[in-house]
Amino acid sequence: MKLKNLVSLRFKERPADCAIDSHALMIRGGYMKYVGNGIFSEFPVLHRITAKIESIIREEMNAIDGQEVLFPVIMPAELWQESGRYDSIGSELVRFQDRGKSKLVLGMTHEEAAVHLVREYGQSYQQYPFMIYQIQRKFRDEARPRAGMIRVREFTMKDAYSFHTSQEDLEQYYQKCYDAYNRIFKRVGIPEVVTVASDSGMMGGNISHEYMLLNEVGEDSIVLCTECDYRANMEAAENIVENVSENKLSALECIETPGCKTIEDVCCFLKSDVTASCKAVVYQKNADDAYVVAFVRGDYEVNETKLRNLVGGDIHPAEITEDSPLVAGYIGPYNISRQVSYYCDLSLKGIDSLIAGANKEGFHYNGLNLERDIENIEYVDIAKVKENSICPCCGKPTLTIKRGIEVGNIFQLGTKYTKNMNMQYVDKDGSMHNPIMGCYGIGIGRLAASVCEAKHDEYGPIWPISIAPWEVHLCCIRPDDEETKRVADDLYEKLKKNNVEVIYDDRDEVRAGQMFADADLLGVPIRVVVSPRNLKENKLEISTRDKAVNEAVDVSEGLDYIIKLKEKLYADI
Amino acid sequence: MKLKNLVSLRFKERPADCAIDSHALMIRGGYMKYVGNGIFSEFPVLHRITAKIESIIREEMNAIDGQEVLFPVIMPAELWQESGRYDSIGSELVRFQDRGKSKLVLGMTHEEAAVHLVREYGQSYQQYPFMIYQIQRKFRDEARPRAGMIRVREFTMKDAYSFHTSQEDLEQYYQKCYDAYNRIFKRVGIPEVVTVASDSGMMGGNISHEYMLLNEVGEDSIVLCTECDYRANMEAAENIVENVSENKLSALECIETPGCKTIEDVCCFLKSDVTASCKAVVYQKNADDAYVVAFVRGDYEVNETKLRNLVGGDIHPAEITEDSPLVAGYIGPYNISRQVSYYCDLSLKGIDSLIAGANKEGFHYNGLNLERDIENIEYVDIAKVKENSICPCCGKPTLTIKRGIEVGNIFQLGTKYTKNMNMQYVDKDGSMHNPIMGCYGIGIGRLAASVCEAKHDEYGPIWPISIAPWEVHLCCIRPDDEETKRVADDLYEKLKKNNVEVIYDDRDEVRAGQMFADADLLGVPIRVVVSPRNLKENKLEISTRDKAVNEAVDVSEGLDYIIKLKEKLYADI
Repeated sequence: MKLKNLVSLRFKERPADCAIDSHALMIRGGYMKYVGNGIFSEFPVLHRITAKIESIIREEMNAIDGQEVLFPVIMPAELWQESGRYDSIGSELVRFQDRGKSKLVLGMTHEEAAVHLVREYGQSYQQYPFMIYQIQRKFRDEARPRAGMIRVREFTMKDAYSFHTSQEDLEQYYQKCYDAYNRIFKRVGIPEVVTVASDSGMMGGNISHEYMLLNEVGEDSIVLCTECDYRANMEAAENIVENVSENKLSALECIETPGCKTIEDVCCFLKSDVTASCKAVVYQKNADDAYVVAFVRGDYEVNETKLRNLVGGDIHPAEITEDSPLVAGYIGPYNISRQVSYYCDLSLKGIDSLIAGANKEGFHYNGLNLERDIENIEYVDIAKVKENSICPCCGKPTLTIKRGIEVGNIFQLGTKYTKNMNMQYVDKDGSMHNPIMGCYGIGIGRLAASVCEAKHDEYGPIWPISIAPWEVHLCCIRPDDEETKRVADDLYEKLKKNNVEVIYDDRDEVRAGQMFADADLLGVPIRVVVSPRNLKENKLEISTRDKAVNEAVDVSEGLDYIIKLKEKLYADI
Repeated sequence: MKLKNLVSLRFKERPADCAIDSHALMIRGGYMKYVGNGIFSEFPVLHRITAKIESIIREEMNAIDGQEVLFPVIMPAELWQESGRYDSIGSELVRFQDRGKSKLVLGMTHEEAAVHLVREYGQSYQQYPFMIYQIQRKFRDEARPRAGMIRVREFTMKDAYSFHTSQEDLEQYYQKCYDAYNRIFKRVGIPEVVTVASDSGMMGGNISHEYMLLNEVGEDSIVLCTECDYRANMEAAENIVENVSENKLSALECIETPGCKTIEDVCCFLKSDVTASCKAVVYQKNADDAYVVAFVRGDYEVNETKLRNLVGGDIHPAEITEDSPLVAGYIGPYNISRQVSYYCDLSLKGIDSLIAGANKEGFHYNGLNLERDIENIEYVDIAKVKENSICPCCGKPTLTIKRGIEVGNIFQLGTKYTKNMNMQYVDKDGSMHNPIMGCYGIGIGRLAASVCEAKHDEYGPIWPISIAPWEVHLCCIRPDDEETKRVADDLYEKLKKNNVEVIYDDRDEVRAGQMFADADLLGVPIRVVVSPRNLKENKLEISTRDKAVNEAVDVSEGLDYIIKLKEKLYADI
């Protein structure tokens, strides 16, 4: 098509509200437009990209025997009450009423709908395994949408659900899907995506993986081992701390620590190392506001996901009021009020002598030994991994932490949904069982933005040819020159006839610099320039957006050259 | 694919709650599943059909220079406040709040989103005309969802929006779209769809057409002329009544009509013809409950759409209370309370002497002559056309009324949205104008169900090959017979290699009758049966779902025969 007819606006200035490059470039290039908080419309350019991504995903899902279905965006509350999630999920789940006061929800994920659809179909073991998937809009009322298409509230997602009669069968299929996902990310042009073990969160189930594009703008922290293949999301990463006891116990003493509100203050005041201190972080349960205290070694941070999983429900940072049983700034595990539940992190284990709050305004304990002083002390893993922590896989102190964008996830769900929603099948021997589920998601818009984030320069995206809005960007410099226009028009027609997707810029009033800037913003992989200057030598200028190719090619050989270059770019993916 | 792996259930019994055949067959055939009131999930069979419909629509929209975009399902209320529709639309529009109490709506149509997307793009006359479209889910909180996919609350729709700098340009494009729609309905297999003039309703604008599949189960009444091309939706059909005055005026007299509550009662009591009576139908405005009385000739019905357009807002049947200024059963235009507004239909014009309510309990007037008795009498067109009414086009009394399913609509919107939302362009001469819009919709699921309704028998749908879930349904009768299975498997592989979409039924435990019943429910156009009996004569049985073809074909010629038959079926569309 002709660029002058393309419905989109491009502009030079980086919008002030764009924190990351993909967001800025996709706004500047006329890919999308802000409609409301976390809500965007897609211009034709972006729609061409997402359609190609969807088509690649469809091929790979069909190749692993997926069958495409469609679930509704809006569902009756009853369906979510069956699974228990109508009540257990927070305000990400939008709940509202229709004209008849019936309760509805906006689908943010579709496990319930999937079970509902196949509950009768899957009544015999002979139907298993099977997988259904959809590509559909979802709405998740994120508290903080950000970074353009990376974290939005409304988004298009491919979500797949598989059903199995045994854990082994699920694991086999899970591996197939694991591989299909790797093929998808390779085919859309980001083979560098890695998988990490992840926390299953509100999805239920145990084993799960996230596909991470390592990138500084990512909002996930990824723990990687530099010596082995261990990779996990910070939320799920096991934290290993090996304190070595020197068996030098001290007497427990209560010390006045005036004005020392933080553990750093106290350690400084007592001239003690922060690694011999016990830090308290206080939360409250969302359900009933009951206090939950997490104790970690002074130099560690609490991993809220792990804590949440232990608590078994959502929590939020506490507000400590005057009538609460906690003394803000002086909370410690020894003599803590029986009204609060608390957890001691593994990082505290094996320390002979700790400094900790005395649960009394202005006082701390010194010489606290948890094994000696607290009855039936138990340790749990609730701290965040730090740089150079011990790898749970190879045992070396070689963990490192990077940022990543989650571009996909796969979960082994177990029977959480089939049990709650009473989906059963009759086995060979006549016995009844709940099928075991897996689920597999990819956000389409986020994937497009992630590719842009991974592949761009300061002038625009550098789209891999497999998902680029067009394959060739043809610029006619000085279309007022008759010969130039004739050659460019001719090439345009020939490219179309040869099934090359081409965007043709033959705008009259536009200078070459503007044309190239626009081409950079559209990020089409092959650029062909027809200009009076090149034509003097009977040449076309053919280059790639990533600058790997830049050739002057005879006009007569242009078409062949472009077709071969296109094939090469596809082959290189 | 193999039928035994297809995620869907088929069953024999017609579900009790299905009023129309397409609904019953699409439930029985495992096309869709009820999730909630007016909300369905789509099984893979239906998804294959809708994907083909979408692909045909995309081709036709792209052929008239449409550019595909994507608008959000959920939009901020502000956007709909700009157009004024946040307040003017009733409870079909779902309004709700997000976690931050911001007001949102569910998109039931996307004029606002379209204007929002291109408001900056369309700032110069040089950008015009252009058309953008999307294929996206919508939610309309219908009061009475019914008839399966025909009237649902959540649905997939193709909605297109064109923008123009002159009415002539809009009309030219409108004609292009009009033709594209005819091609679409032809290509999906229902060329018999007709266009009718329609009422623009809440969309605004003037000229509009609906594409109607004439069918008894349709919920629209269509007025057609048997002598000329005139066709209109009942809602929009002009009603012509030519009463011939005999100039025999009578004196106006007030008569006691005890117990005569309906106009029929009165006419019977007074031994007068109902065509010489004035019937009152009372409504109230939704906005303020003010009374609106429609007077029509006794043998006519009120066309509420026309009345609503005159009133300029929504109305509902009135509740007449004791303290209201109206006397139920005795309402007439003469001496009616000044507190109520009323409209007299054209069917009352030219009648010398009418019977009408006297606005007094138990009394009617006789001899009422509107021209004589009511000052500045005005007549408006607010009655429904009747069978054999006069055609507004050719003037003959040859109108007839049929039922139809609306499968698409096109509207000339004018500047309603661009004005309200302040979209302007600079014209050649520097003057500023609001662009003129057209909009064009097709519901995908309803179209699929409509094709089913038009093309089915008692055993199942008869899908046109262009949108059929598969092209060939291959049945292997007695797969336990080695030779039969070998021939069937071999044909299956060859069909796949030749890009024939084939569903293969090689189920072991299933009798031939069941196989055929299942095939009927799937409605695939070409059926191939491999059975031991046919193979004795080295034959395959090849037939079409519509029974036009039924041949025994040599096994060796089977593949060629099928490919040719497939091509013929496509050519016949």
